[in-house]
Amino acid sequence: MTVVGVIGGGQLARMMIPAAVNLGIDISVFAETEGSSAHLGQTQIGDFTDLSQLAAFARTVDVITFDHEHVPLAHLHALREEGAVIHPPPEALALTHDKTVMRNALHALGLPQPRFAILSSLAEGEQAVSEVGGFPCVAKLPVGGYDGKGVRVIQSLQDCADWISAGPVLLEEFVDFHRELSQLSARRPGGQWVPWLPVETRQSNGVCSEVLSPAPGVSEELVAEARSIAHTIAESLGVVGVLAVELFELPNGQLLVNELAMRPHNSGHVLTEQSVTSQFEQHLRAVADIPLGSAALREPAGAMVNIFGSARFAEYSLIAADFPEVKFHSYQKQPRPGRKAGHFVVTGEDSNVTLERAKKALQALQGVSA
Amino acid sequence: MTVVGVIGGGQLARMMIPAAVNLGIDISVFAETEGSSAHLGQTQIGDFTDLSQLAAFARTVDVITFDHEHVPLAHLHALREEGAVIHPPPEALALTHDKTVMRNALHALGLPQPRFAILSSLAEGEQAVSEVGGFPCVAKLPVGGYDGKGVRVIQSLQDCADWISAGPVLLEEFVDFHRELSQLSARRPGGQWVPWLPVETRQSNGVCSEVLSPAPGVSEELVAEARSIAHTIAESLGVVGVLAVELFELPNGQLLVNELAMRPHNSGHVLTEQSVTSQFEQHLRAVADIPLGSAALREPAGAMVNIFGSARFAEYSLIAADFPEVKFHSYQKQPRPGRKAGHFVVTGEDSNVTLERAKKALQALQGVSA
Repeated sequence: MTVVGVIGGGQLARMMIPAAVNLGIDISVFAETEGSSAHLGQTQIGDFTDLSQLAAFARTVDVITFDHEHVPLAHLHALREEGAVIHPPPEALALTHDKTVMRNALHALGLPQPRFAILSSLAEGEQAVSEVGGFPCVAKLPVGGYDGKGVRVIQSLQDCADWISAGPVLLEEFVDFHRELSQLSARRPGGQWVPWLPVETRQSNGVCSEVLSPAPGVSEELVAEARSIAHTIAESLGVVGVLAVELFELPNGQLLVNELAMRPHNSGHVLTEQSVTSQFEQHLRAVADIPLGSAALREPAGAMVNIFGSARFAEYSLIAADFPEVKFHSYQKQPRPGRKAGHFVVTGEDSNVTLERAKKALQALQGVSA
Repeated sequence: MTVVGVIGGGQLARMMIPAAVNLGIDISVFAETEGSSAHLGQTQIGDFTDLSQLAAFARTVDVITFDHEHVPLAHLHALREEGAVIHPPPEALALTHDKTVMRNALHALGLPQPRFAILSSLAEGEQAVSEVGGFPCVAKLPVGGYDGKGVRVIQSLQDCADWISAGPVLLEEFVDFHRELSQLSARRPGGQWVPWLPVETRQSNGVCSEVLSPAPGVSEELVAEARSIAHTIAESLGVVGVLAVELFELPNGQLLVNELAMRPHNSGHVLTEQSVTSQFEQHLRAVADIPLGSAALREPAGAMVNIFGSARFAEYSLIAADFPEVKFHSYQKQPRPGRKAGHFVVTGEDSNVTLERAKKALQALQGVSA
């Protein structure tokens, strides 16, 4: 019997449950609260910042993986010393915990990324700003930022003076990109690595709002380059599980690494319907160390739109008649403005048609949720 | 909050869990034992023949549906009198509890079926055998038979004398059919009804072993006739949920109703990968009374093969590398000879190609399970 333990009871843990049902493995979720998004599966309730609780959880599972990247790395090292199998390993997760670690690691690997500088005091400011190409540039909090939080486009150092006084700040070149892509792939402990085709992600207010799969009009060269970057990261760092590499595509077709996630990722939700193997199934395969599934697409085009705020079954039921082909995913979260509450997926022959349908469903849902 | 209660913890309840995860509804399974096939979801343990336990379960859910048809009908009537919502209703379920009830009801509806007679004593034997066209004919136990159990092809009344001495026996015409089909559909309380295309089912030793979806080479007329039969049954009986109508296709293209199931059915497992809406999702939509999803197929051909005996994750892991496109479903059941333990699904462009791949995976799995 294989038991995969997932730390975090959010929607990513929730969506691993169907994959576990299919594969016939047990999944146990270490959730923060009763009634978490993952409550439809087997959950244990606990505090992921408490090492003793984590250790007790670890003893009930065969492998530990994650719904989020907020578990203190020191705890993960301690768990591993006690014999826990942790995928991805803490050394790889370090890049997702601290963006300065990520930038330095990608630099050491020679991978393309925006110019960056790490700023510890205002006195270093002029030099750092010059290294990233001047203003405007992007200031990021190294730790804890997500979905646009902890990121500012700045016109002067005063725009992030509050951050600098509290600790180091990552400065990055402002990239005038053509669009954003995400290269999803998965890697097993022994090195087997399987990529999907890159998807295009579109953001609103710094948060992913729409995904087109595959990214329309990508050339073979671009696919090869995106895969090469992702494979270098996965292999060099020993990533195990799904790796999402968020990329800027420049007007000249060049790719730069924006962000990394080492778990199923919002940009891959469309694959649940579109791919022979969903990212959730692939993640479980990878962390349980069994051969990965096919990443082929069942249909040539797919689109996903995030539902923010509220995505309740009762609301969906009011619009479902008009959208029989639009797949609804609710995370069963309490409604809250701006919260990712669910998503819609449409698959078909044409990217724009599928996206338009998904957006129409979103509009209708917002109409009844208001 | 909608809570769907499922009586029975088998693989059909298990496979409703992913659909509940997507839709954002809670599902509570009334299972016979800890560690049931449905144990990955929220389960309560109890005895479905005990009315007081059923009543306590009913009070915790908004609607009751089923994994199997073994709950005493009297209990269901009693629960409904206490206010429980039961889908499908006991009046419809009566047909799946007793094959003589089914034959009489289909006869009253004027639907095509094998000639039949109900035999209560050996003294009525000659008359009954003559009504069904003589020997060989088929003897069936009216209650409790499934997967080839309780069914005999008889050459003389002596072949079922043991059954007749114990109670009524259903005699049916021996039908020299071309092939067997299954027409799956789903109906909501208000009458919305959505059919899938008919599938072809192939049996070994009276048990479904392979399914091709859609049934190769079906004419528009045959599709229309299969749908008409299914719709008549669903509407006349007030079925709510998935209805599977197992059909004989005669060499002349005529259809006869063989069996009925009023729940997700083995013949529809291929739809989980192939259809925009799986039978499990459609069942939940129907019993929760929200608009049904599209029954369109994402890919033109699909095949399913049942795995009998043993379908453990550890066994599958040994063959997975050779079958990355073959989708594995384990029911996490204790291995037992002949037991339905899981299934494989392959989808693609061509029925025979998909079936051959699924069968190759089955052969490989049997090689490592032996």
